Amino acid sequence: MTLRTILTYSEGSPDASSAIRLFRAEAELPPLKESDVAVQFLASPVTPQDLLVIAGRYPVKPSHKHEHLAIPGYDGVCRVTAVGSKVTALQPGDHAVPSRHGLGTWRSHAVVDSSALVKVPRELDSVAASSLKMGAVVAWLLLEEQDGLGPGDWIVQNAASGVIGQFVAQLARLRGLNTLSVVRDREDVESVRQRLLDLGASVVMTEAELETCQGQVPCLDGKRVVLALDSVFGEPGKRLVGVLTPGASYINYGSLGGADGELRLSQKDLFWKHIKFTNFRLSAVLAAYDQNQFADLLDWLSRCFLQGQLRVPEVDLVHLSRAEDPERLARDTLAKATAQERVGHKRQVFVFE
Amino acid sequence: MTLRTILTYSEGSPDASSAIRLFRAEAELPPLKESDVAVQFLASPVTPQDLLVIAGRYPVKPSHKHEHLAIPGYDGVCRVTAVGSKVTALQPGDHAVPSRHGLGTWRSHAVVDSSALVKVPRELDSVAASSLKMGAVVAWLLLEEQDGLGPGDWIVQNAASGVIGQFVAQLARLRGLNTLSVVRDREDVESVRQRLLDLGASVVMTEAELETCQGQVPCLDGKRVVLALDSVFGEPGKRLVGVLTPGASYINYGSLGGADGELRLSQKDLFWKHIKFTNFRLSAVLAAYDQNQFADLLDWLSRCFLQGQLRVPEVDLVHLSRAEDPERLARDTLAKATAQERVGHKRQVFVFE
Repeated sequence: MTLRTILTYSEGSPDASSAIRLFRAEAELPPLKESDVAVQFLASPVTPQDLLVIAGRYPVKPSHKHEHLAIPGYDGVCRVTAVGSKVTALQPGDHAVPSRHGLGTWRSHAVVDSSALVKVPRELDSVAASSLKMGAVVAWLLLEEQDGLGPGDWIVQNAASGVIGQFVAQLARLRGLNTLSVVRDREDVESVRQRLLDLGASVVMTEAELETCQGQVPCLDGKRVVLALDSVFGEPGKRLVGVLTPGASYINYGSLGGADGELRLSQKDLFWKHIKFTNFRLSAVLAAYDQNQFADLLDWLSRCFLQGQLRVPEVDLVHLSRAEDPERLARDTLAKATAQERVGHKRQVFVFE
Repeated sequence: MTLRTILTYSEGSPDASSAIRLFRAEAELPPLKESDVAVQFLASPVTPQDLLVIAGRYPVKPSHKHEHLAIPGYDGVCRVTAVGSKVTALQPGDHAVPSRHGLGTWRSHAVVDSSALVKVPRELDSVAASSLKMGAVVAWLLLEEQDGLGPGDWIVQNAASGVIGQFVAQLARLRGLNTLSVVRDREDVESVRQRLLDLGASVVMTEAELETCQGQVPCLDGKRVVLALDSVFGEPGKRLVGVLTPGASYINYGSLGGADGELRLSQKDLFWKHIKFTNFRLSAVLAAYDQNQFADLLDWLSRCFLQGQLRVPEVDLVHLSRAEDPERLARDTLAKATAQERVGHKRQVFVFE
């Protein structure tokens, strides 16, 4: 008998916190079909994507249900506890992450088809592993979207202190790219600035500092600023457009549900500078991705972690199994994640052990 | 001896009216080189492009000078009075229009290389002929910019009561296209509306009426609105974007010098609807155009006029040769053309006979 913890939600609720329900139940492991894998989740982050899923604003729906309620959580890392008779890619004791969206990682235990998982090194830190798909992979793919990025090129990004922003700065440095990382104004700006510089950002500016420059950023004078990574839109997005070199790309990500606001573009921005405006959808990009290619990418990113080339983002661990009222804790966690003013808040990660 | 009238300007002047100078001189026709043609201009319009040329904001500079001052005017129609020994394409009595930009049409007489002219039917009305290149040709090319336009498709345009807007409505109707023509608010809106409907516009709305609709234009419900032709940018441009169907094109034209203002685009406009934003530069398009192709286009458009399928735009004729103070009249004409509030003003056409 195992004590299982399962989070579910009522689909399409605008308020993630009140949509969540937590079940705890003693249950036997069901008999495994030949391609099944039984797993225990170690760490399952609360990502912006999960919030979109719960709000009904994400195209890929959860694959698993409990008591007719959908199980949220699309990223995380698990340990394999048992495998079906025909499973060869995974063995008990292996660590694995979801191979695609919809797995439902916000639960302590699961039985899933082996194709739903990709093995990662078991010596990899759980938080690092749980940030692979919705963090490091996204950052890596965003940099891949622009052809011909080369050493010495500059990219500019906002929301740079977030998990994806931290990975962008680190992966850019690995490729010899320079990063102007823009963060929101906050009280602890100097410590954030130093942390991002330590990670590999070339220059860190606040939104207010960039606004003051009016597009004339001294460190960018004469540089090729070939890519803007925007996850905010509106005025902060406009500031990124202002520093781009003609022919550059502007990629918006992380606001699939439709950010409010508008991008105010001049004729110079829209026509003369030939900026290419596109939107990045992880589910669409991953759908076109070969499974072996994805496994190789995870493997390479894992090795970057193990060799110290990538640093684990700072997160807040949420120990559901240790809580007196785990449902209340889960609700509070989502309330914090969806709060309007999240400047400086760390990503929260559910821990089930 | 011939009494010649020649307008010139000092290049790069922001104020077209005060940059203009008019010369009148008795002069003999100079001896013609073997490929030369002597012409008398009949009608030479004042186009928005001419104003950009005088302001130094147009890339193609005038080809002819008088007393070291540049001769403006890039469109018009002339009558051939004499030809050089090797000229076969034109004969005395033929009518012709400029084959490319820079000819300098704001003068009564000129001697130019025969390659600078394209013959048009002499029975064609002078005002019609003088509006071919910067009016009908531009409208035709704008419609050509969007691939796959077909009968039943809708296009939307602003500044629809202007010369190009009138031609767009007429040429669209010839191709079975529907046109939502947007005009600025004005006192005589009902007569303008009726005139555009008579020309072929399917629906005519004012900017205020379109604004009230908030993009939900009843007549467009369920229609394919595949092309927006914008010559204003800013808020009026934004209103055109609002009615476009996903995958449509938005073409800005007529503001090469750089319109002020900004286009405020939502994520829906920029990403989900995949609107293609481009700018139309007549000089660039014509430079890539084969001369025979251009001649065939002029010929076809001329026949459309002669057969009543295209109607001559309403213009104000400015009879320079009859004026007591022709320089003052020319200056007043340009002052009127550059006035901020030109709603409802007709295009002005210099007449030299």
